[in-house]
Amino acid sequence: MDLINVNSYLAGHWTPADAGARAIFSAVTGDKLALAGQDAIDTQAMLDHARLKGGPALRAMSFHDRARMLKALALELGKFKDELYALSHTTGATLADGKIDIDGGIGTMLVYASKGRREMPDRHIYVDGDLEMLSRAGTFVGQHIATPLQGVAVHINAFNFPVWGMLEKLAPTLLAGMPAIIKPATATCHVTEQCFRRMIESGLLPEGAVQLVAGGLGNLLNRLDYQDVVSFTGSAQTALMLRSNPHLLENSVRFIAEQDSLNASVLGPDATPDSPEFDILVKEAVREMTAKAGQKCTAIRRIMVPEALLGPVGDAIAAKLATIRIGDPALETTRMGALASSAQKSDVLDKARQISAECRILSGNPETFEVDGADKTKGAFVAPMLLACDDPDAAQAVHAVEAFGPVATLMPYRDLAHAGELLNRGRGSLVASLITHDPAAARTIALSSAASHGRLYVNNRDSAGEATGHGSPLPHMVHGGPGRAGGGEELGGIRGVMHYMQRTAIQGSPDIISGITGTWIKGAAKPKSASHPFTRSFEELAIGDTIEAGPRTVTLEDIEHFAHFTGDTFYAHMDEAAAKANPFFPGRVAHGYLLLSFAAGLFVEPAPGPVLANTGLDGLKFMKPVSPGDAISVELTVKRKTRRTDEYGEVRWHVAVLNQDGDDVAEYELHTMNAYA
Amino acid sequence: MDLINVNSYLAGHWTPADAGARAIFSAVTGDKLALAGQDAIDTQAMLDHARLKGGPALRAMSFHDRARMLKALALELGKFKDELYALSHTTGATLADGKIDIDGGIGTMLVYASKGRREMPDRHIYVDGDLEMLSRAGTFVGQHIATPLQGVAVHINAFNFPVWGMLEKLAPTLLAGMPAIIKPATATCHVTEQCFRRMIESGLLPEGAVQLVAGGLGNLLNRLDYQDVVSFTGSAQTALMLRSNPHLLENSVRFIAEQDSLNASVLGPDATPDSPEFDILVKEAVREMTAKAGQKCTAIRRIMVPEALLGPVGDAIAAKLATIRIGDPALETTRMGALASSAQKSDVLDKARQISAECRILSGNPETFEVDGADKTKGAFVAPMLLACDDPDAAQAVHAVEAFGPVATLMPYRDLAHAGELLNRGRGSLVASLITHDPAAARTIALSSAASHGRLYVNNRDSAGEATGHGSPLPHMVHGGPGRAGGGEELGGIRGVMHYMQRTAIQGSPDIISGITGTWIKGAAKPKSASHPFTRSFEELAIGDTIEAGPRTVTLEDIEHFAHFTGDTFYAHMDEAAAKANPFFPGRVAHGYLLLSFAAGLFVEPAPGPVLANTGLDGLKFMKPVSPGDAISVELTVKRKTRRTDEYGEVRWHVAVLNQDGDDVAEYELHTMNAYA
Repeated sequence: MDLINVNSYLAGHWTPADAGARAIFSAVTGDKLALAGQDAIDTQAMLDHARLKGGPALRAMSFHDRARMLKALALELGKFKDELYALSHTTGATLADGKIDIDGGIGTMLVYASKGRREMPDRHIYVDGDLEMLSRAGTFVGQHIATPLQGVAVHINAFNFPVWGMLEKLAPTLLAGMPAIIKPATATCHVTEQCFRRMIESGLLPEGAVQLVAGGLGNLLNRLDYQDVVSFTGSAQTALMLRSNPHLLENSVRFIAEQDSLNASVLGPDATPDSPEFDILVKEAVREMTAKAGQKCTAIRRIMVPEALLGPVGDAIAAKLATIRIGDPALETTRMGALASSAQKSDVLDKARQISAECRILSGNPETFEVDGADKTKGAFVAPMLLACDDPDAAQAVHAVEAFGPVATLMPYRDLAHAGELLNRGRGSLVASLITHDPAAARTIALSSAASHGRLYVNNRDSAGEATGHGSPLPHMVHGGPGRAGGGEELGGIRGVMHYMQRTAIQGSPDIISGITGTWIKGAAKPKSASHPFTRSFEELAIGDTIEAGPRTVTLEDIEHFAHFTGDTFYAHMDEAAAKANPFFPGRVAHGYLLLSFAAGLFVEPAPGPVLANTGLDGLKFMKPVSPGDAISVELTVKRKTRRTDEYGEVRWHVAVLNQDGDDVAEYELHTMNAYA
Repeated sequence: MDLINVNSYLAGHWTPADAGARAIFSAVTGDKLALAGQDAIDTQAMLDHARLKGGPALRAMSFHDRARMLKALALELGKFKDELYALSHTTGATLADGKIDIDGGIGTMLVYASKGRREMPDRHIYVDGDLEMLSRAGTFVGQHIATPLQGVAVHINAFNFPVWGMLEKLAPTLLAGMPAIIKPATATCHVTEQCFRRMIESGLLPEGAVQLVAGGLGNLLNRLDYQDVVSFTGSAQTALMLRSNPHLLENSVRFIAEQDSLNASVLGPDATPDSPEFDILVKEAVREMTAKAGQKCTAIRRIMVPEALLGPVGDAIAAKLATIRIGDPALETTRMGALASSAQKSDVLDKARQISAECRILSGNPETFEVDGADKTKGAFVAPMLLACDDPDAAQAVHAVEAFGPVATLMPYRDLAHAGELLNRGRGSLVASLITHDPAAARTIALSSAASHGRLYVNNRDSAGEATGHGSPLPHMVHGGPGRAGGGEELGGIRGVMHYMQRTAIQGSPDIISGITGTWIKGAAKPKSASHPFTRSFEELAIGDTIEAGPRTVTLEDIEHFAHFTGDTFYAHMDEAAAKANPFFPGRVAHGYLLLSFAAGLFVEPAPGPVLANTGLDGLKFMKPVSPGDAISVELTVKRKTRRTDEYGEVRWHVAVLNQDGDDVAEYELHTMNAYA
C-alpha cells in the first residue's frame, strides 16, 4: 500500500508533508502507513488568514447563520462516515469505537446547530443573563453581553478521537464566530485530515474559518495574542508545558485544558448482588475498560464498591472481560481493538506495573492473551487488566497513576463518606459515577465530591435504558474538571460557546442598551404607531412598537361572574372580610387570570392577520391588586423578534397592565407566532 | 504618635508585627506610621485552619444563611465608617475617596447579601442553568450544579482600596461557602486591619472563615491545591510573576487576575461643544483623573474625541483641573489628596515622562503646584496632568504605559471605526466608556470593541443623573477584562460567586436529579397525598406532593361565553373555517387563558388557608389546542420552596393541564406565597 501523505491546510492551501515529516504506523500491523508534518510553516500567514479573513467573515454572520452552517456541515459529513470508519481501523478502532468518534462528532455539531438556533439570538450580540437595575428611576441599567473574540482559536487535540476531538471544539468555536487552527495529534491525524478535507470540499465554510496543521505548530503559540484562545486536550504533562509558556502567560492568552484523569465509579451502598445496580456497574465498568481499548480520558480507572461486594464485583467483571475478543478492529467479531501505537502500549504496560505493585491482579495478563486476525507481536494489543486494591487509604499509585488503556482497579469502601474521600483522592477528575437507586446517597456524594469532578454521572434501574454511559461527554453538559483534569471546561451547551467570546458588562440608558442588544427593555422608547401591531407582518414590526388599549372597568359583577364561571371561588375574590385579613389584599380583588383575560380582550385583533397564535408567556408578575371599580388598561410593546420557520417567526411582547392611576398591576412577556409578509 | 503595630490574624490568633516587619509611611507627611509583617508564619497551620474549620463551618450553612451573615456583617461595619475614614487620610485619601473605598465595600457586601437571598436557593447546592433532556423518554436528564470549593481562597489585594478591595472579594467568597486568607498590600494594610478587626470582633463569622496576613505570604502559595483559589488585584508585572508560579500551574490552582489597564473614554461623533454629552465627558474625565488621585485600576487614561473637538475638550478639562485643590486629604476643601506613597509618586512621574515624549502637555506641571496644609516635599503629592497626542496611530507609549495617578492623554479620532481601533490599542482593558446619545454609535462600538473590554460604560443626557461613573465597578456587573487587564473576572453578581465554586454536570434519572437539587422535575416521583396541598402549611409541603383535579369538559358555549365576556373574539375561537386555515389549529379552539382560568378553578381551595396569594407564573407553554368537547384535568406538583419572610415563603408549583387522552395541553410554573404553620 502506498504511504498516505497527510496534507496540512495552511492559509487556504493544501500543503503536503515534506522533509520535516514524521511517520505514522498502523496500530494493527505496525506497518508504516502515512507521513505528516512540514519542515517549516508560515505561522504569521496562517494567523493573518484566520484573523483578517476567517474572523471577519464569520462575525458578519449571525448566530443563526452560523448554526445553519453547522447543521449543513454535519449533514454533509454524515455522507462520509463509512470511509472514516474504514480509515479508523488503522488506529486500532473497531466499528463501535469509530461510531463513538465519528457519529459522536457529527452529533455534537448537530446539537450545537440546534442550540444555536434555540438558545442564541438571530443577531450578532449574545445577551448573557438578566438586566440589572442600577438606578432608582431606571435611567441607568446594566446588561451582560458576549461578542466573538477577534483572534483565532488554536485547537490542540488528542490522538484518541481524531474526528470527535476536532468537531466538538470546532462546533462551539464556529458558532461563536471565531476561526480555528486545528492541530490533531500526529498518531491519528490521517483520520482527522480526511474528515477535514470533506469539510473544505463542502464549500460550506468561509475562507479562513478553518486551517489544519498535521505535524508541529512551529512558533505559532509564540505569536498568539489576548484575543486568541488555546484549547488543549491530552496529557497532564503536555498541558503543563503549554500553560507554562511565558508568551501565553504574558499575554493573558486564554488557555483551556482538558486532561485525562483518575475517573472513578462507585457502586452505592444500597446495591446487592441481586440488584439491577450491581449489573449496571459491571456493565459500565467493562464498557469503559474496553471501548477504544480504554483510551478515553473519561474512562473508569478506579471502581469503588461496598466492602462486602469486592469479591462478587471482581468476579463478575472478570467473567465479562474473559468474553471480550481482542483483535483486528476491522473484524465484526472483535470487541476490543489495538491501542493507537506501540508507544502507547509500552506506556500502558509500564503504568499498569506501577499500579499493580499496590494491588492484586484479578484478571488479565499482558503475556497470555489471544488476538484474532492480527499479529500480537506487531500490533499495539494489550489485554484488559482488572486489579484489586485492598487498602485504598494507604495506596498511592492507584489514585495518581493513569494507565491510558484497558486497566482498572477495584477497591472497597466502608461507607459513603469513605467513598467520597476515595473519589477525591484522584485530586480532580473529569467524571465520577455513582450507581445507586437512592437519591439521598446521590445527594451525599454530590455534597462531598461534586467539587472535585466536572461531571457526576448517576445511573440505576430507572435510567439504565436511556443512560448514555459514564464515559460519554455530551455536548449539553460541561466536559472538563478541576485539578488533575486540567481545570478547564468545554461543551456544556452555550457555556462552551462562551469560551470563544468575551463577556462584557454594558451599562447605559435603556435606549442605549436596547440599541446594542436589539431587545426592547423597560424605559426604552415606545414609539406609538398608527396601525395596530397585530395587523403588521413579522418584518413590519419594529422593536419598541407599542399599542395601548383600554380602559376597562373591572366590576364586582365581573369578579363574581368569573368566579362562578371558572370555579375559582378563592376567598380573596369572594369574601370581603377574609380577603382583608390576608396580608396581600385590601379586600376583595379581581382574579389574576381575569386580568390576563381582559387584557387579551383589550388588545386582540379578531380578524385573521399576521398573528397566528399565542404560544405562551413568561415572567408574569402580579404587582398590585385590582379592586372592584378599578379600570385597567394595557400596553403591548414589541420586545424581541426571532425567525423560526420559512413561514413565521416568534415575537416576544412586553405586556404591562395598568390601573387608572397608571400603576403596574401586572406585567409579563407574551409569545406569539407571526407570519412573514 | 506611637507607631501602629499592624497585626496579622493567623489560624485564629492575632499576631503582632515582629522583627520581620516593614515600615509604612504616611502618604501626607512622609512620617513612619506603622509596622507590618512577620518574620515567619506557619502557613500550613493557616491552611489547615481554613480548610478543616472555616470551610466545613461555612459549607454547613445554606446560601441564605451566608447571605444573612453578610448582611449582618455589612450593617456592623457601617458603625465604624468614621474611624476608617480618619485612618484612610494617612493613605492620602480624602473623605470622598474614603467613601468610595469604605461605603463602596460595605455596599458591595449588601448587594451580595441581597442577591444571595433572591438569586440563590435556601439550600447547599446551587442550580446552574436549565435542565437538559438527554433521552427521548426522559428517564435520563442532565443539570448543572455548583458546590463550594473545599479549599481556601487567597485574596492578594491592591493598595488603592484597602477596604473595598477586601470586601468585594470576601462577599462572593463567603457567599459561595469558602474561607479566605486576605493579604492586603502592605502600604495601606493598617486600614484593612482595622476593618478586619471589626469583622472579627463582631463574632458574626465562624472560626476559620477569614484570616489576615499583613506582610508577606511566606511559602503559602506553594502549599496551595486544586481546591484553592488565588484572586489577585494589582500590577501586570506582579500578576505575571504569580501566574507563572510552577506550583500553581502544576496543580491547576484557579488564578483570577484583575490588573490595571489603559482604560479609555470616547466622546461620540454626535457630540458638539453645546451638547450635554460634551459636558458629561469633561466631568467624567476630571473625576476619573482626580478621584483617589487617579489611583484606580479603572481610571480613564486615554480620552478619544472627534478631531474637531480636540481643542475645546482639552480647554474644558484643563479649566476644570485648574480648580482642583490639592492638599491634606483631611481638609474639607481638598479635592485631591496624595498618592499612597513616595514610591508611587516616583513611578507616576516616571511613567508620565515616558508618555509625554509622544505628547503635548495641556495642563499640569509636576514642579509648580500648590498643596494645602501639607509639605509638598514630604507627602506624595502630584499635580493632575492632561496630555494631548496628535497622532495616536503612530504613538506607542500612550497605549501601553500606565501612569497610575492623575494623568490622562487626549487624542483625536476620525470616525467610529477609528475610535474602535484606538480603544483596542490598549490590548485589553477593564472598562471603556462612550459618551453618546446615539444607540447606533453604541452598537457600532460594542461590535468593534466589546471583545477587548470587560465593561462598556455608555453615558448621555438620559442617564447622567443616575449613572454611577466610568470608574466604578459595581457588584452587579463583571469587573475584569481581557489581555492587559489580566484576563480575569470578578463580581458580576452570582457569576462572581461561581469563581469560588465548582460547576459540575450531573446526569441521572429525574428522581436522582431532584434528590440532589431539592427541586422537583418532570419525571420525578409525584406522591399523591390525602389532603389538598393548599390546606397544608409551607413546612408541611414536601417536594413532589401532587394533587390531581378535574376533569372539566370545555364546551363551545364556554368558549363563546368567555370570548364575549372578555372581548377576546380572536377568529381562532370564533370562526371554524378561519381557524382551520391557521397552521396551528384544527378548527375553533379554547382560549389559552380560558384553560388557565378553568385549571385554577379546578384546583383552588376556596376557604382561607395557608395559600395567601398567587404572585405570578413562568414558562407557560400552550402545547396542544383544546377543541370544544375536550375534557381537561390538571396536575399540581410542589416544585420548589423558598422561605421569604418571617411569616411566609414562596412555593413554586409545576402545573400540567391535560386533555382526556392524557396529552399535555399546557404547562407552567405557578408561584404562590404560603404561610408557615
